[in-house]
Amino acid sequence: MQTRSRGLMVSAMALALAAGAATADEMAEYKSFFEPLPFLPPIPAHNSMTPEKIDLGRMLFFEPRISGSGVISCATCHNPALGWSDRIPRAVGHGGQVGERNTPTVLNSGFLESQFWDGREPDLEGQALGPIQADIEMNMSLSDAIDRLNEFEVYRKHFAAAFPEDPEPIRAENVALAIATFERTLNTPNSPLDRYLRGDEGAMTDSQKSGMRLFVDAGCVACHNGPALTDSNFHRFELPGSTDEGRYVVTGDEFDKFAFRTPTLRNVAVTYPYFNNGSVESLHDAVQLMGQQMLGQDFTDQELDDLVAFMHAMTGEMPRVEIPALP
Amino acid sequence: MQTRSRGLMVSAMALALAAGAATADEMAEYKSFFEPLPFLPPIPAHNSMTPEKIDLGRMLFFEPRISGSGVISCATCHNPALGWSDRIPRAVGHGGQVGERNTPTVLNSGFLESQFWDGREPDLEGQALGPIQADIEMNMSLSDAIDRLNEFEVYRKHFAAAFPEDPEPIRAENVALAIATFERTLNTPNSPLDRYLRGDEGAMTDSQKSGMRLFVDAGCVACHNGPALTDSNFHRFELPGSTDEGRYVVTGDEFDKFAFRTPTLRNVAVTYPYFNNGSVESLHDAVQLMGQQMLGQDFTDQELDDLVAFMHAMTGEMPRVEIPALP
Repeated sequence: MQTRSRGLMVSAMALALAAGAATADEMAEYKSFFEPLPFLPPIPAHNSMTPEKIDLGRMLFFEPRISGSGVISCATCHNPALGWSDRIPRAVGHGGQVGERNTPTVLNSGFLESQFWDGREPDLEGQALGPIQADIEMNMSLSDAIDRLNEFEVYRKHFAAAFPEDPEPIRAENVALAIATFERTLNTPNSPLDRYLRGDEGAMTDSQKSGMRLFVDAGCVACHNGPALTDSNFHRFELPGSTDEGRYVVTGDEFDKFAFRTPTLRNVAVTYPYFNNGSVESLHDAVQLMGQQMLGQDFTDQELDDLVAFMHAMTGEMPRVEIPALP
Repeated sequence: MQTRSRGLMVSAMALALAAGAATADEMAEYKSFFEPLPFLPPIPAHNSMTPEKIDLGRMLFFEPRISGSGVISCATCHNPALGWSDRIPRAVGHGGQVGERNTPTVLNSGFLESQFWDGREPDLEGQALGPIQADIEMNMSLSDAIDRLNEFEVYRKHFAAAFPEDPEPIRAENVALAIATFERTLNTPNSPLDRYLRGDEGAMTDSQKSGMRLFVDAGCVACHNGPALTDSNFHRFELPGSTDEGRYVVTGDEFDKFAFRTPTLRNVAVTYPYFNNGSVESLHDAVQLMGQQMLGQDFTDQELDDLVAFMHAMTGEMPRVEIPALP
């Protein structure tokens, strides 16, 4: 009888799983790894969020005239139409030069604990000025950029409004503060995963729920956890075709060779292609490669389908940003 | 007494002018030259305007993956943040190449009777495919562009919805029809000039009204008239620094050498720099040059101020376009 009653229990559990009802224990486990995305990331004490700064940051984000060619802005590679990224393998910048790395999305980037694939900047303020100056990206010196902005009455007004206590508000540091502030508004709450974690059982499909279970059990969750689904840490792996030494370039530490910051999985379904050189276009292939490299595991087709379905549950509501009218 | 009463009359007229009241005759004269901008331009019989086509055209307009580099779209040079143009002298395209001509705005382009500076295409349908293929602009063959679009389920759906009777809707001709349809929605009604012409005396400042009077009296209106403030015709002039033969390249007719289509003056204040090579940045300078070249006239500083003020009365309400979510 014991066998039979165990059989019944298993059947009952299978039924419960098929119906998608997570047990209280299971939900508690999920909540220990995952967290619904807050509407805003932490705001640093030295850069308070104000409407004036957001507004100025939005203008600067879309401003191509702080590039050497006059046609490349932050929004060129971090394109709002393309998940705030570019959906090509590697970034194309000044004079059509192709960079070494795939453009990371700006979405939810305020939740990351370091910026760039190699984490060389601690925050968005540190990140913002890099691409403006990089000769293969926007290719403009900060002093030229500041001079250009100073030509416009409209910018003089907006900088003064955003930094009212600064006697000379049009400065590179303030460009960074404003862009970072705008970027902290670009978040994607209310994904199916978020709604599920908040108690809406119907927010995820059965396949997504199976994928979530597997995501936890297989160990993906070891690195992809927290509100942004990243540990913001660095991990080595061998990506076919990549010679990029990653974190090692920053630290010079052999241990960091070929290590990259765990990318956020938020909106991963709409921010293809994948990995530091953007060489993998399909999410299935990306998940398979991660399973093999990080977990030593070959997922079955069904498992891959479920994991990919779960990735789709991480697509949130896109921010609705109005294109600014630049001077 | 006659002298005195004439003096009184003149004073009364001056007062009326200062208060900005146009006489009935004057308003009739204005209305013979100018026309409030309609909300939509003429829609060609072979390309009816439908919501599905507008929507698809908007996607294609913002789509950089139909360019050789994958990062240049129509919206790169016809940037909604910059008056649907680029505010640099000459267009920058594929690989950072600089074209020969200034990017014309897309705004109200459906009202023009020919397209491009040299008028080589009769309509927006004819215009749309040019920049995609031009090696210094987007640099992609139409067959590659069509192949690329065909990869996306979302585009297959949108093309089928926009062209329901076409068994193979993803075709270059339909790309042109959709983009042209979207562009016909990009109009800027309700400028101060439009409101003034509709009877709102307070819509223009006194300086703008003086500028309007002078614009008519000096003869600017001979070429800049009608709803788009252009005769859509070709006129020769000598632009310092330009060797561009203009309309001659199209017709081979000596008479057309250095002739360009009269540009629309709608939104001229926000679509600098000016002329076929974008060599003139200031609207004052542009108006002065036109006075000298086309009318043989040196405007005084006051006249220039008034004419420029009148140009600002031609800035209409910008279309609010939501950035599409591309697949």
